[in-house]
Amino acid sequence: MKLTILGCHSATPRTNTNPTSQVLEIKNHMFLIDCGEGTQVELRRNKVKFSRIKHIFISHLHGDHYFGLVGLISTFQLLTRETELHIYAPKGLKEVITLQMKLSNSWTKYLLIFHELTSKKSELIYEDDKVEVYTIPLDHRIYTNGFLFKEKENERKLDINAVLNANINKAYFRKLKQGSDVENENGIIIKNNTVTKDPIPAKSYAFCSDTVYNEAVIPIIKNSTVLYHESTFLDKNEALCKPTKHSTAKHAATIAKKANIETLILGHYSTRYDGYDAFKFEAQTIFENVLLSKDGKSFEF
Amino acid sequence: MKLTILGCHSATPRTNTNPTSQVLEIKNHMFLIDCGEGTQVELRRNKVKFSRIKHIFISHLHGDHYFGLVGLISTFQLLTRETELHIYAPKGLKEVITLQMKLSNSWTKYLLIFHELTSKKSELIYEDDKVEVYTIPLDHRIYTNGFLFKEKENERKLDINAVLNANINKAYFRKLKQGSDVENENGIIIKNNTVTKDPIPAKSYAFCSDTVYNEAVIPIIKNSTVLYHESTFLDKNEALCKPTKHSTAKHAATIAKKANIETLILGHYSTRYDGYDAFKFEAQTIFENVLLSKDGKSFEF
Repeated sequence: MKLTILGCHSATPRTNTNPTSQVLEIKNHMFLIDCGEGTQVELRRNKVKFSRIKHIFISHLHGDHYFGLVGLISTFQLLTRETELHIYAPKGLKEVITLQMKLSNSWTKYLLIFHELTSKKSELIYEDDKVEVYTIPLDHRIYTNGFLFKEKENERKLDINAVLNANINKAYFRKLKQGSDVENENGIIIKNNTVTKDPIPAKSYAFCSDTVYNEAVIPIIKNSTVLYHESTFLDKNEALCKPTKHSTAKHAATIAKKANIETLILGHYSTRYDGYDAFKFEAQTIFENVLLSKDGKSFEF
Repeated sequence: MKLTILGCHSATPRTNTNPTSQVLEIKNHMFLIDCGEGTQVELRRNKVKFSRIKHIFISHLHGDHYFGLVGLISTFQLLTRETELHIYAPKGLKEVITLQMKLSNSWTKYLLIFHELTSKKSELIYEDDKVEVYTIPLDHRIYTNGFLFKEKENERKLDINAVLNANINKAYFRKLKQGSDVENENGIIIKNNTVTKDPIPAKSYAFCSDTVYNEAVIPIIKNSTVLYHESTFLDKNEALCKPTKHSTAKHAATIAKKANIETLILGHYSTRYDGYDAFKFEAQTIFENVLLSKDGKSFEF
């Protein structure tokens, strides 16, 4: 699982800071999460192949999370994309994009499929044989979802020497990987755990931006491998959280601790601060394993 | 008169090329012309003060000419702008921007005034005591206008020694600057041209992007100081002009020659070409005084 930060700042793009956008590589997918202005340039800069992006997840309709989307859709069209593109976003985005296409009299030749979100409960919005994606309802000034990307349980690994010694027919290997006991060539039942090893643990990534401190997310993201949680403010500006519905680094750390997360990544920093070490420092007073997102930085888990 | 090119490429933003946007400084105005994605970052990079931009002119509603506008409007709001902002653009843009504001539940506290354009004839769309702005109807795939920025005639300059020698009362100086003959303290009529000098010639800037070769613009832009004319293609790709409704460098040069322009600036280059010298070379086979626009380059006239 590899996460690349294309932009991690709040509010407005500047010469050296980009608004929210990330690419999550998981089980051969390239999921684009949020798409602030300039995202297509950051994708190029980080050498992400446009054709690998088939699913885009938009958390909410504040500009710093989606103003780059219409340009990306247009660029895909100019590059004569044929692969279909799925967009998961709050209701309303389809109307904006469609209106802009109508005014420019240019429609995509590839299939553009909007999955409009309206539910205030966590729901499964994407699933295949390897991955599931759920919404994480957040509490922000407008309707907002985070997203939980979960690998499905990996198959058990065959202990190939044990399997051969046990005289098991190849036809049963699939069943073994799925965890079943099987009968060997001599008609004897072989216990699964005597010939297989535990699978690589399934990983999960929870993306939570933007939100005020909200314990309702904890049961949804519980035990995730990685949590990205917005930390717009430092503790000294906590008073700004309530009116703007944003969080501090300590809020993010508290959620990470209560949800038993392995690794917390901070981001969506307000541009009022000069450096970002203070975010890490404050978060680590509550939760140890903290990383700072930075435009152009990749994390592997 | 100073022109700064924020972006001069066609189609899509890339790591080192920006779509169309320019700032024209004329008679203390900062006119923003077109606003492709990334324009606000380029404004910062070129140290253009946001507060000085009070009028934005959008040629047409293809994304590479306006996808940066909604972000700029939002940023002005985040920076607590109070000055009103006028936007001159094809009908439809107001609906897009208003819809995006509605969805984000954030309205500007400054006055945002749309001047929606629908006429297919050249019309005066802005005027004050120093400057006039006219539309230049262009021939593109969708409704498109260029813009002609014209300084009004400057006042005549007083030849201060001659004025003193002629014994003219200070009260008549304004009339002299406006070109009138006046009576001196001795009751004698003083001919204006004996005590004043010719004014600095009024300058004008014609912006023509995007358009197929179109001689109908010639009477509108006749004798302009500077013409920016798109040159998407080189001669070898002229066959692409008709279906895409774009021009070659030679087309631009022919318009410049026929309209008796002083200086031609080329731009809106297709990204299919490696360098841009060939554009200048081809244009100069028809018209001598050719400059190449380049992102971040300024021209003073």
